[in-house]
Amino acid sequence: MTVTVTAVEVHDVRFPTAAAGDGSDAINRGDYSASYVELRTDAGVTGAGFTFTNGRGNELTCAAIQALAHHVTGRTVEEIFADPVAFWRSLSADVQLRWLGPEKGVIHMATGALVNAVWDLRAKLAGKPMWQLLAELPTEELVASVDFHHITDAITPDEAAAILDKGLIGLDERRAGLERDGFPSYTTSVGWLGYPDDKVRALTRQAYTEGWRAMKMKVGGPPADDLRRARIIREEIGPDALLMMDANQVWDVDEAITNMTALAEVDPYWIEEPTHADDILGHARIARAVTKLTDGRCRVATGEVAANRVIFKQLLQAEAIGVMQIDACRVGGVNEVLAEILMAAKFGVPICPHSGGVGLCEYVQHLAVFDYLRVGTSLDGRMVEYVDHLHEHFVDPVRTREGRYLLPTAPGYSSTMRPESIAEFRFPDGPVWR
Amino acid sequence: MTVTVTAVEVHDVRFPTAAAGDGSDAINRGDYSASYVELRTDAGVTGAGFTFTNGRGNELTCAAIQALAHHVTGRTVEEIFADPVAFWRSLSADVQLRWLGPEKGVIHMATGALVNAVWDLRAKLAGKPMWQLLAELPTEELVASVDFHHITDAITPDEAAAILDKGLIGLDERRAGLERDGFPSYTTSVGWLGYPDDKVRALTRQAYTEGWRAMKMKVGGPPADDLRRARIIREEIGPDALLMMDANQVWDVDEAITNMTALAEVDPYWIEEPTHADDILGHARIARAVTKLTDGRCRVATGEVAANRVIFKQLLQAEAIGVMQIDACRVGGVNEVLAEILMAAKFGVPICPHSGGVGLCEYVQHLAVFDYLRVGTSLDGRMVEYVDHLHEHFVDPVRTREGRYLLPTAPGYSSTMRPESIAEFRFPDGPVWR
Repeated sequence: MTVTVTAVEVHDVRFPTAAAGDGSDAINRGDYSASYVELRTDAGVTGAGFTFTNGRGNELTCAAIQALAHHVTGRTVEEIFADPVAFWRSLSADVQLRWLGPEKGVIHMATGALVNAVWDLRAKLAGKPMWQLLAELPTEELVASVDFHHITDAITPDEAAAILDKGLIGLDERRAGLERDGFPSYTTSVGWLGYPDDKVRALTRQAYTEGWRAMKMKVGGPPADDLRRARIIREEIGPDALLMMDANQVWDVDEAITNMTALAEVDPYWIEEPTHADDILGHARIARAVTKLTDGRCRVATGEVAANRVIFKQLLQAEAIGVMQIDACRVGGVNEVLAEILMAAKFGVPICPHSGGVGLCEYVQHLAVFDYLRVGTSLDGRMVEYVDHLHEHFVDPVRTREGRYLLPTAPGYSSTMRPESIAEFRFPDGPVWR
Repeated sequence: MTVTVTAVEVHDVRFPTAAAGDGSDAINRGDYSASYVELRTDAGVTGAGFTFTNGRGNELTCAAIQALAHHVTGRTVEEIFADPVAFWRSLSADVQLRWLGPEKGVIHMATGALVNAVWDLRAKLAGKPMWQLLAELPTEELVASVDFHHITDAITPDEAAAILDKGLIGLDERRAGLERDGFPSYTTSVGWLGYPDDKVRALTRQAYTEGWRAMKMKVGGPPADDLRRARIIREEIGPDALLMMDANQVWDVDEAITNMTALAEVDPYWIEEPTHADDILGHARIARAVTKLTDGRCRVATGEVAANRVIFKQLLQAEAIGVMQIDACRVGGVNEVLAEILMAAKFGVPICPHSGGVGLCEYVQHLAVFDYLRVGTSLDGRMVEYVDHLHEHFVDPVRTREGRYLLPTAPGYSSTMRPESIAEFRFPDGPVWR
């Protein structure tokens, strides 16, 4: 019995977050939005996926999904997963559309939305949450899902298979641990750049009381302000909890090194996006400087805007990152994220997925759990970002307890949005935007 | 007297080139297209710009231009050029749209189209061809046109100013030389991957007869085919003419090194895009290998898909390229190309602009001439790509003589398309597409 995708429906959904200062940082001030896609099938099951954007321009990623949709409509789930790389390349290497990336920006984010919808559909048909579907797949099928084109100088299919085979050992124990304790996470809700000092202090205190022992603040404002806000958070959380910083690419390379020299005082655990997302050599220089400045206590993290597996490959090869922040829908969806997770394991760098926005927590919890269960196999240095926004719009929202994500149990990728939310926030005709 | 942009008009123009095999290579098979923009003004003069795409998806770059247009409409030319970086950032760093790049792909190509249209407008108002407008600008104004954000670790405003000041020496002699002899170029029309052997031989012979002494072929097919075709061209052009190769990113890093080991036999002058456009470290490894293989005779070239100045910066810092192939409309237009041209000079790498497609020859001749006159100051290793397609659709088409571009003389950036061509090839309603 085959399941055929009969139609691809795309919705431009936007939440008016900019006015509140939520999500404000050194570079972005956005209305969190989703280019949301539903794959209708002849089996009555719907696959849901999306890519996340920052408001204006969400119509472009929606249009890009429409431009790629003909590669999905009419295909069967069985056919797609019989040759997953061929399917993935039909989207990522379309002989005309590839020029618009290649494998980056609008067109690649659209690929991610469609690819994730296909995987959500498969997980729903299998009756398993995505993390479980992935963790239980045979090694050869996981390896066959990865496009190794342009990354064979960093990882080969044989190396990937060896990592995945090894990941089968102890998998049941790790799973039992997660079912009992949940997955470690950290919160970014305390220190957006748009928040005044007293709000930062109050939110930090509240988060600490709720059990969070790792918090991230935005930096990249005037250096004196960054340091003042960092001291407030450090005061509130004491010396043992982790304090992470995120500059959202605003600094030049030498500026990043100068500013981190001052911020080292508050013992940061990582500096995220210290400079332009494409600057692999710059990140590597900053990493060397920060390691020296802090005796290796502080590391460089990046990934939410890393365009594709080729950028991640180089960040690892250049020893530019000590934390790899995969994103679920910036790159070409599950298939490409698998490549990234496997490379991180090969290079011994822990994964702490990028999250927040709208729906990103829902997505990435599955990826982090799969990584731990089947690839990375250790929780050392692993945590998922958590931001307490917009979960109410999802059918299967994330659940947390004392600073930890609880394992999702519903079938699928937790990517299905509530129809009422789509109707209310659809741009430009939903009631919120009219 | 000020000139105000009163409206931004966007046209989706596509030429049905895919069927002929023109422009076919290892990755692309496209209908050469332009997302074409016209800036209407209250002075009766129209600024024209475009970005080049490969057919399907041209509606996405057109929509992205529309999404950015509000940053241009209503502004005066005087205001824009009073603070050019502020203008450029209003497009490239829009707090919501930046997420869709950043500074790459669809949204950045749209920036390029608009920025180029603004410069075309300015050059027309000044009554000068773009190369002349740029070459005659005071050093401080050229420096003020460059956004040095994220590249100060490679070049500072002071270093740029020193280069531009030095470029004033001997400028008149260089200009007289170009007026007499034209600018060196090479042809890509002989060796598209879609052409059979006898067509390659015939076209090569014809080009040689016409005066061309540098020719580029596509590689990246089966290695034996690449070598056979390369031998045909080398036979026809003799040992002294230059033979360049272009793999259009199809190879993995080690594969590129292996294949170039075989192709070294025909003495290639450069290997272009040997691997993924984002792979700076990969290009650097290939460059080291190819240099060794050929005693430094063959170099690595890339740039037509380099997303922005940060990628070019790293290609130079990593010594990954011996030829820098700037593109006029892949990056954010004239302002960003200026940054790239200045960095190339700082690192001592010659510029050979990417061309072909539709309208790219028209654009880049101005950039190459400006580079030679004011920045690079030498013709050693400098040539502009030439492809003999679609020039008839432009009001001020390129003119060549014996393998050299003749200096443009009409005011503007040669980017204005003929209204009849727009009407005929407009997608989807032009007669050609109906």
